[in-house]
Amino acid sequence: MLNRSSRMAIKSFLALVFIFYNCANGHGMQAKAKPDPSDAHATARWLVSQNTWGIISTISIDLQGAPFGNVISYSDGPPGQGTGIPYFYLTLLDPTPRDLQKDSRCSLTVSEFPLGTCSGIDPENPTCSKLTLTGKMEALNMSGPVADFASQALFSKHSEMMDWPTDHNFQFFKLNIENIFLIDWFGGPKPLSVAEYLQPGRLVLSS
Amino acid sequence: MLNRSSRMAIKSFLALVFIFYNCANGHGMQAKAKPDPSDAHATARWLVSQNTWGIISTISIDLQGAPFGNVISYSDGPPGQGTGIPYFYLTLLDPTPRDLQKDSRCSLTVSEFPLGTCSGIDPENPTCSKLTLTGKMEALNMSGPVADFASQALFSKHSEMMDWPTDHNFQFFKLNIENIFLIDWFGGPKPLSVAEYLQPGRLVLSS
Repeated sequence: MLNRSSRMAIKSFLALVFIFYNCANGHGMQAKAKPDPSDAHATARWLVSQNTWGIISTISIDLQGAPFGNVISYSDGPPGQGTGIPYFYLTLLDPTPRDLQKDSRCSLTVSEFPLGTCSGIDPENPTCSKLTLTGKMEALNMSGPVADFASQALFSKHSEMMDWPTDHNFQFFKLNIENIFLIDWFGGPKPLSVAEYLQPGRLVLSS
Repeated sequence: MLNRSSRMAIKSFLALVFIFYNCANGHGMQAKAKPDPSDAHATARWLVSQNTWGIISTISIDLQGAPFGNVISYSDGPPGQGTGIPYFYLTLLDPTPRDLQKDSRCSLTVSEFPLGTCSGIDPENPTCSKLTLTGKMEALNMSGPVADFASQALFSKHSEMMDWPTDHNFQFFKLNIENIFLIDWFGGPKPLSVAEYLQPGRLVLSS
């Protein structure tokens, strides 16, 4: 029969095991299960819905046309309403939207690795999935139904954006996707159609 | 006087507290303290030494000159010997080095966010630091002192690379840095000289 101090220590032990497991699994308490890699469209949508930031690559004005990547937050929809289309909240004080004013071509790149589900696999290993959406960035009106959706999408996942300085003139943008590059297994990029990727039926992943 | 079961449970408890603390701090067992944001060069070097992957942006051949970002592992040196210069291990089966054969201009972008030290701050918030190194990628000889250093740098942090298929003809590359873009506080990008960034005296961060 264990005494009181033993029981308390054991309970603490079990509690920490639970916490450690979820922490070690990259905050697995919130992650939704990764689809089977053979379902490329679902995997692509999972990557977009689970990540909240990525790198936007643009043609740099400041660097004479060199390719330039920048860390940018995004959202493809409020939790449970992911669309596969990334929305952004950008200020012209940042080089990325200035580049896009001149040349709207860009890509958004995200990785499975920061989600914590690559489990010891190297970020460059093809089984640690990665996705690049390429297309043209569109600046959105700041009022109307599209703006309403953009604000719900972004502010539900990036609540501090609502307090960002108004004199920075942040604006909503969305990426009109023209090409999808996905690596989620050996054998090279998976063939992916944008139309199938955007299907509403892909809304299987609440995030 | 505690009995044996109590002592064992308490030791387990303390061990898990230690593990949890480091896990919750973004695998803090290995993370070195972030420099003061006012020391831009040290912050830039810290970001490069602490991250092990980033996004390389290139001008895409496949996408008719669009900017294209790709998830790539890297290392700036073996632990304790960081140089600030990123080294890569790439195969021409991947679009990135094919793009670089035609146009060697590229950038490497890394974020503080996956290090776990942004502590609830949004990835796009300027106090969650981010860095983009732009320059020209150089393919390295696969033998000699530079190759030796590249292999030590990469394989010490990405040990599975040593087992990647030889018929993929992986090759070492390094980025010859021409421009540094760092955001680590409010007020826009920090002015940074490449020469000062590369100073050996910056080797203060063992990683």
